[in-house]
Amino acid sequence: MTTLTRRLAAEAVGTAFLLAAVVGSGIMAEKLAGGNVAVALLCNTIPTGAILYVLITMLGPISGAHFNPAVTAGFWLRRDMTSGDAMAYAGVQVAAGIVGVLLAHAMFDLDVLQMSLKVRSGAGQWISEGVATFGLMLTILLTIAARPNAVATSVALYITSAYWFTASTSFANPAVTIARAFSDTFAGIRLADVPSFIVMQLAGAALAVYLARAMLIGSAKASGPEPAE
Amino acid sequence: MTTLTRRLAAEAVGTAFLLAAVVGSGIMAEKLAGGNVAVALLCNTIPTGAILYVLITMLGPISGAHFNPAVTAGFWLRRDMTSGDAMAYAGVQVAAGIVGVLLAHAMFDLDVLQMSLKVRSGAGQWISEGVATFGLMLTILLTIAARPNAVATSVALYITSAYWFTASTSFANPAVTIARAFSDTFAGIRLADVPSFIVMQLAGAALAVYLARAMLIGSAKASGPEPAE
Amino acid sequence: MTTLTRRLAAEAVGTAFLLAAVVGSGIMAEKLAGGNVAVALLCNTIPTGAILYVLITMLGPISGAHFNPAVTAGFWLRRDMTSGDAMAYAGVQVAAGIVGVLLAHAMFDLDVLQMSLKVRSGAGQWISEGVATFGLMLTILLTIAARPNAVATSVALYITSAYWFTASTSFANPAVTIARAFSDTFAGIRLADVPSFIVMQLAGAALAVYLARAMLIGSAKASGPEPAE
Amino acid sequence: MTTLTRRLAAEAVGTAFLLAAVVGSGIMAEKLAGGNVAVALLCNTIPTGAILYVLITMLGPISGAHFNPAVTAGFWLRRDMTSGDAMAYAGVQVAAGIVGVLLAHAMFDLDVLQMSLKVRSGAGQWISEGVATFGLMLTILLTIAARPNAVATSVALYITSAYWFTASTSFANPAVTIARAFSDTFAGIRLADVPSFIVMQLAGAALAVYLARAMLIGSAKASGPEPAE
Repeated sequence: MTTLTRRLAAEAVGTAFLLAAVVGSGIMAEKLAGGNVAVALLCNTIPTGAILYVLITMLGPISGAHFNPAVTAGFWLRRDMTSGDAMAYAGVQVAAGIVGVLLAHAMFDLDVLQMSLKVRSGAGQWISEGVATFGLMLTILLTIAARPNAVATSVALYITSAYWFTASTSFANPAVTIARAFSDTFAGIRLADVPSFIVMQLAGAALAVYLARAMLIGSAKASGPEPAE
Repeated sequence: MTTLTRRLAAEAVGTAFLLAAVVGSGIMAEKLAGGNVAVALLCNTIPTGAILYVLITMLGPISGAHFNPAVTAGFWLRRDMTSGDAMAYAGVQVAAGIVGVLLAHAMFDLDVLQMSLKVRSGAGQWISEGVATFGLMLTILLTIAARPNAVATSVALYITSAYWFTASTSFANPAVTIARAFSDTFAGIRLADVPSFIVMQLAGAALAVYLARAMLIGSAKASGPEPAE
Repeated sequence: MTTLTRRLAAEAVGTAFLLAAVVGSGIMAEKLAGGNVAVALLCNTIPTGAILYVLITMLGPISGAHFNPAVTAGFWLRRDMTSGDAMAYAGVQVAAGIVGVLLAHAMFDLDVLQMSLKVRSGAGQWISEGVATFGLMLTILLTIAARPNAVATSVALYITSAYWFTASTSFANPAVTIARAFSDTFAGIRLADVPSFIVMQLAGAALAVYLARAMLIGSAKASGPEPAE
Repeated sequence: MTTLTRRLAAEAVGTAFLLAAVVGSGIMAEKLAGGNVAVALLCNTIPTGAILYVLITMLGPISGAHFNPAVTAGFWLRRDMTSGDAMAYAGVQVAAGIVGVLLAHAMFDLDVLQMSLKVRSGAGQWISEGVATFGLMLTILLTIAARPNAVATSVALYITSAYWFTASTSFANPAVTIARAFSDTFAGIRLADVPSFIVMQLAGAALAVYLARAMLIGSAKASGPEPAE
């Protein structure tokens, strides 16, 4: 494969597995939890955090392991990526995320094509998405500068935590948000609620880029678009 | 011990402990969970992921820590192992896996010899096993290339995640599948359902070998049959 | 930013996120746990431990990642920090901790300003806070000497454990204690009970400084106020 | 402190904290779990595994971080320790373990002096203790040889797993077993049942020493009594 093709393949494989894990574990957890939603959310959180470590570790050296248009936008804002590459990344992430959701449905013998009816809206949800994505992008940028080999662990544990400390359970990712609109299961979100989430996610990521820049002045600068290693 | 004997001893110890952990924790978890199946599965998942880290870390330098005929077949397909060694590995893995199950029964004062009656069949289950083993083999091959010291953590967390995002709870291992047929407990599978699982597991592993090869072209190639370190 | 400003900014960001995680995950966990307090506390513990790893890893190289006036006092007692810097650290930690609590309330659509009514008092609670902070400070000092790169993991896992083995759920941090007085939710503490907690926390930290000094005589001394890396 | 005093102090601090964590988290977990024993055991398991990582990491370089007379006996059997040092270690471990239990009682406002009435007896329990300690000692010895820096993680995760896959919840430690006889709480064991546990633990550890020796022939030998780093 050519280099760009390899990078896009890595983003596709990673984002598809991420969404299969988020949506699949949500289905399994809700089915088995006997109505205890905290148990269900815990059994959705742990598989999500775990697969993030796995995917970032194995795909980071190839594509940077973004799996997230807000993260890609953040690196583009730092001029670590060209506009063309960033748009290709984002397109592949969204498409592959939807494939991952359909795959989860197939594994659980559900209708493959679904649209979520779950309302996720209101000030608390929007603040949550802004905070969640701000924290995620700040984690990525400061950890790349502090200890690059810890990025996979830090992102996995950040999302594990943010599932619980934000009211929205921390989507923090436009590709994840769009893909989850295609699943009327535990992890779903109504399509009409998607745009507000994405606006807040991009705003949070942008804010983190500027704060990280201020906090890192005088430190060694991070090395570019392939953060995971 | 001669070198091959040492390697087979490592595969035997590892696969026996793996099955004792999978089946034993399933027995304990189901007994204590008061009917909440999500809690039971969580208390089966965490011990399984934890023991995988331990076993791969301590036995990887000796045998490669496969504990899994599908993984062994994948390395054979890459010509990292001879046919003879691969067959010896697979035979030892299956036999030791069954010993591990019997040991779990003995520890819990159950009949040592049992056959499972639990039906695990249908399209969703089969797709799940293909996806689960594809992801496992891809994780192993790409992580060896990306960061060899992370293989133990990545395999442990991959299985922790796949327990929940696949409908089959991710057997992803022919030796595990055969051995679990000998336990009529939480983790069991009806013997009649074993062959379809194994076919899908081998297909998933083979597909991962080919995708990993394509994605790694131009990268440094992994170093052979002893991936864990 | 100047160096001291950068360090204080790091303490502010870290302490605010820590409190948002502690209080936010407590709100989410209690809301979803259906009255099972062990499940609620587990779903409060895991996000707290996880965010500690993330924050210490990414901010340790900048400020030392104290987020805790008792820890700052311990380093001051060792003469690793000037009195002025230590007081600036403590002031920022307390203020930022309160901001983190208010942010959690905003994310969950609760009244932003609250005062806790939860009584946390009595000999068992006070012994617990002394033991908890003694163990935390000892962990930090001995781990810096033993393996500096493990401090983030060790602090995260220490708090994960101490949530359960102390009767007070291990506040172990004066800034956390004060900030949690401003939240009448799962993690709250009555303002009147705060001073006793802080006295015991400072006593525990001081005791750990002296024991660590005795145990490390003859070993290489730790390198100063930036322990996390 | 002199060197032997420092080593014994490290064993005392570590074993006391280990027992405070095992017994304290058991009390907290049972109190909050509302009768779901799987939830209680999970909330006992996670703090135990977590504190083991912390204690082995910070005290390993000082004393080897045994906290366990069966482990000390194993190193003595390998002639890595003198008989005198091994007996001093074991004595300190037992005494400090009891102190840790009393401390847990004090933190939870319980009678400090108690004797357990919980029966733990029978073939399954005894096989379990043999298997548990065999696996623990094998993990320590093979991980020291394979990757010394992973010992803390491996021991923590081994015990996390063995809590669930053995019928006895894996005491695997004579000092822990004796100390838990002094607590009539979740983690207790009747004093009359202690000797059989210890016999099986020592037998399991000895067997692991011999198997590890056979499996490591031709490999680099481990470096002595301070395994954790």
